[in-house]
Amino acid sequence: MTEKKPIVEVCLSPALLHLYDTSNANVVIIDVFRATSTIATVLYRGAKEVIPVAAVDECIRLGGTITNSITAGERDGKVAPGLQYGNSPLEYPEDFIKDKTMVLTTTNGTKLLHMVGDHRNIITGAFVNLNAVVDFLRQEKKHVILACAAWKDRVNLEDSLFAGAVVDALSNDFEVLCDSAVMTQRMFHQSQGQLLEFLKASNHYRRLSGFGLHEDLAFCTTPDLCPIVPIYKNGRLVKN
Amino acid sequence: MTEKKPIVEVCLSPALLHLYDTSNANVVIIDVFRATSTIATVLYRGAKEVIPVAAVDECIRLGGTITNSITAGERDGKVAPGLQYGNSPLEYPEDFIKDKTMVLTTTNGTKLLHMVGDHRNIITGAFVNLNAVVDFLRQEKKHVILACAAWKDRVNLEDSLFAGAVVDALSNDFEVLCDSAVMTQRMFHQSQGQLLEFLKASNHYRRLSGFGLHEDLAFCTTPDLCPIVPIYKNGRLVKN
Repeated sequence: MTEKKPIVEVCLSPALLHLYDTSNANVVIIDVFRATSTIATVLYRGAKEVIPVAAVDECIRLGGTITNSITAGERDGKVAPGLQYGNSPLEYPEDFIKDKTMVLTTTNGTKLLHMVGDHRNIITGAFVNLNAVVDFLRQEKKHVILACAAWKDRVNLEDSLFAGAVVDALSNDFEVLCDSAVMTQRMFHQSQGQLLEFLKASNHYRRLSGFGLHEDLAFCTTPDLCPIVPIYKNGRLVKN
Repeated sequence: MTEKKPIVEVCLSPALLHLYDTSNANVVIIDVFRATSTIATVLYRGAKEVIPVAAVDECIRLGGTITNSITAGERDGKVAPGLQYGNSPLEYPEDFIKDKTMVLTTTNGTKLLHMVGDHRNIITGAFVNLNAVVDFLRQEKKHVILACAAWKDRVNLEDSLFAGAVVDALSNDFEVLCDSAVMTQRMFHQSQGQLLEFLKASNHYRRLSGFGLHEDLAFCTTPDLCPIVPIYKNGRLVKN
């Protein structure tokens, strides 16, 4: 008797999340440029935890109450006024971020994290921790929902491409039934692993390269630089 | 001086439509399997008009008040109880449908049509009238929004693929800035024109072929069988 395979689905925008039953699934939050790349990076480099918050003022308030913490975040791709640091993974070398708590607010990623809520397994994914995420999901053998943070609810290329990379890696052990999953997997095939090149046509690439963030873009599209799994527990992201 | 090109955007689901400014755009409603394929077919074959309505009981009521009309529609891919005909383009040969009014209700397509509302140019598109739609949009030289009906708000492969075909045909004369448009255009390239084959992995293909509707699927993926443009005027779709 063959075991029934679990399902992997892709949700292309937070505005479509209500169509998916997240209650008993492993949910992967995806915000490649750059929240979930930064989260994986700082936890890999020894940060104690990342606390995602929705608003800039909450970020400042919370940062003031936690010892050895920093506030970080972007609005429209730039450091938000009143915060100490931005949302670039390159801002956080190990000797700076080790043992610190990062209180982080971003345009799209943290919003989605709060929307999904308090399920057992919410993790974050990005190319920098692609195979760690894939390994985690494979071991769990449970329904997977890949939730793209998108850009202000608009479907974007980079989060969809990452979702496709995960679908592709899982496709032997999981059922790929949802059309969004099929689309993103095919898109990943089409990229032929040339991730940065493939994403040059995206809105976010244009926006960030317009800010001079070419190194960020290259970093965020390099697989497995930070092979850990950030998992959401009691409002905090910690290394699994 | 080069003229500024108009923009073509793709909206992958009715649940994302609020993110697009439809107020001064040409909007193309897309429901390939099968509402907009059927609409193009019956108007091409001489139907007087198609009146899209949301509910089955409204369809029956309205059909009773219009001379020489038929009621048609599906729920979950099957003829809805109380209606006379289904949503298959093959049910409507010219000698049957000529000069008739079709009152039509479908799961996804008519809903989206009503959501877009009363703009100047709302047309419907499907592979059977692909190049007629493209020619219309090219002549108009105006902002285009390709609005996929999807499946109960879930992004689907067939409507996305059609959107990609239109984006591709317009890409010399229009700006392709939105990531959804880039994604669908690339998906269309990937299909290499093997539309039916490409769609075999889709949910809707499995659903309809499960109902034995292979001929419908082949018809709905054959370009330019019905080269007309259905346009929405005063609550009715008529041949432009």
